[in-house]
Amino acid sequence: MILIKDIGELGLLAIVQRYCPREIIGDDGAVLSFPSSHNLVVTTDVLVDGVHFSDRTTSPKDVGWRAVAANLSDLAAMGAQPIGITVGLSLPPSLPVAWVEDLYEGMSDCTRQYDTAIVGGDLCRSSVITVAITALGKIEPERVIRRNIAKVDDFIVITGIHGASKAGLELLLDPQLGQNLTEDDRNYLIQAHQRPRPRLDVLPHLRGVTALRSVAGMDSSDGLADALLQICRSSGVGAEIALANVPLLPSLLDMVGIDRIWEWTFYGGEDFELVLCLPPNLAIELVRKIGGKSAIIGRIVTGNKVITINDDLQVETIEPRSFQHF
Amino acid sequence: MILIKDIGELGLLAIVQRYCPREIIGDDGAVLSFPSSHNLVVTTDVLVDGVHFSDRTTSPKDVGWRAVAANLSDLAAMGAQPIGITVGLSLPPSLPVAWVEDLYEGMSDCTRQYDTAIVGGDLCRSSVITVAITALGKIEPERVIRRNIAKVDDFIVITGIHGASKAGLELLLDPQLGQNLTEDDRNYLIQAHQRPRPRLDVLPHLRGVTALRSVAGMDSSDGLADALLQICRSSGVGAEIALANVPLLPSLLDMVGIDRIWEWTFYGGEDFELVLCLPPNLAIELVRKIGGKSAIIGRIVTGNKVITINDDLQVETIEPRSFQHF
Repeated sequence: MILIKDIGELGLLAIVQRYCPREIIGDDGAVLSFPSSHNLVVTTDVLVDGVHFSDRTTSPKDVGWRAVAANLSDLAAMGAQPIGITVGLSLPPSLPVAWVEDLYEGMSDCTRQYDTAIVGGDLCRSSVITVAITALGKIEPERVIRRNIAKVDDFIVITGIHGASKAGLELLLDPQLGQNLTEDDRNYLIQAHQRPRPRLDVLPHLRGVTALRSVAGMDSSDGLADALLQICRSSGVGAEIALANVPLLPSLLDMVGIDRIWEWTFYGGEDFELVLCLPPNLAIELVRKIGGKSAIIGRIVTGNKVITINDDLQVETIEPRSFQHF
Repeated sequence: MILIKDIGELGLLAIVQRYCPREIIGDDGAVLSFPSSHNLVVTTDVLVDGVHFSDRTTSPKDVGWRAVAANLSDLAAMGAQPIGITVGLSLPPSLPVAWVEDLYEGMSDCTRQYDTAIVGGDLCRSSVITVAITALGKIEPERVIRRNIAKVDDFIVITGIHGASKAGLELLLDPQLGQNLTEDDRNYLIQAHQRPRPRLDVLPHLRGVTALRSVAGMDSSDGLADALLQICRSSGVGAEIALANVPLLPSLLDMVGIDRIWEWTFYGGEDFELVLCLPPNLAIELVRKIGGKSAIIGRIVTGNKVITINDDLQVETIEPRSFQHF
């Protein structure tokens, strides 16, 4: 097995440069054309081995895909189309070169899929694998999606299923959990965890529906509950969620039962769907256009609480429970 | 002493957000206005504790300044004006909060000095302090400075002294070395290492001199020898350097003597000056405008070698000797 220290920095550089467009290599920075009358959107994520990923559940290819997908999802959450990403990598010299190649394979699979590219980066030595990604996007200023502009009576749209990524992770950690699932269902859930899809495809629909109006929203990367709470706190409003309207995956229900499914749906995280708040008529049209498992799950109300209402009209309050790194 | 783990992620976030413009906080990404008819320039650097900096020679404030200065220098090397930087930080939970505050103080000292700002970032836990910075800049497409467009007969301009940063580092490691220096000289050299200045101030002069013509060049962050070699290799040319024209610092000569001074001047690194190649008449005008220790040190010739010529017409070839991370 060839290690990084066997080929040195120049050898490694030659390998990773294969994954960048040729015209942007060789200068101190990359030069990208930028459309007039657009704003630049920028977002950064740092992933650390043992904190954000582990060999137990995620191959280097999937680490690469997920890292890019998470950043592209942040762009989608702002309404922006990607124009490029940069990758700052810290790597132990004893790491196999194949690990780095697989990481770049996964990253460039994802950038290709979403019509963007790796446009720059840096390599250096460290005792811990660290992947720092910055994603760059473009957006017309009047179309920026923001957390703080939800209005009372807006309908709340989610663009797909929640809880599937968490289920996929649990299946990888304990395959026994999936013994009643079909092979297809199992693969679907594991894919949801390993190859999440940023919802950039939603943006053209949103554009078709809202003309020049901004909508409120963000992505659900830290969980559906977190997204609802953040939007409400930023906007100074509350929300009512009708549980009957929240789409559930039948396979997930088989796997964990009705009690735990709400836990995973609201707090599972890493589903990378969009949570959007817009006037009722536009919300209805948007869900019709997106299709799939998108749904109107509730509405924005006065106050500052996010509550759920079940079929028996029982009310519960959604509490913050965000992940703390330190 | 308060540690990061004492205040948690939210506490740390509240502290670092004080260093960002308020209007860009609270969404998944930062939204920046961007001028029409400009290109976007992007550059990324990753700094790792124990590799790029050490408590022995660099306070956290200086780590912050240097990290930003290095990235702004990469923008200057492309001819671009900064529009913002993002900071991805990985930190051990046992690190004092004051360290992080000092880091941000140093970073924002530098962004303020160069009329830009910290516009985004990410925080996460790691066993090793890692600072990943991405700098964003704007440039008119016809003004991009590139390594690969040096032409035979261009004059080679350097915007200032080389070797001072290396001398500052050596003084910090071994104060005895500076026993014959004045306090002012000693401080000048140490400042050159701890608070290097990206040469963004050169760009308006360049603009005044070159009208709409691109010039060849890069910064000398990896050493003057490296910059000359990279430009020549990229452009398919050679260079002749007249040692008599290379500016030396008298204090540096006192400190290390004539033998070692060439070594430090060409291979010391981290001076963050610009090395520019342009037609003789423009080069002369540019040096007149920049002033200070800027100088025309030689010219571009056919071939592929970088040679130096001393007062006795002795010729030596400059060989590559770049730092390898792995």
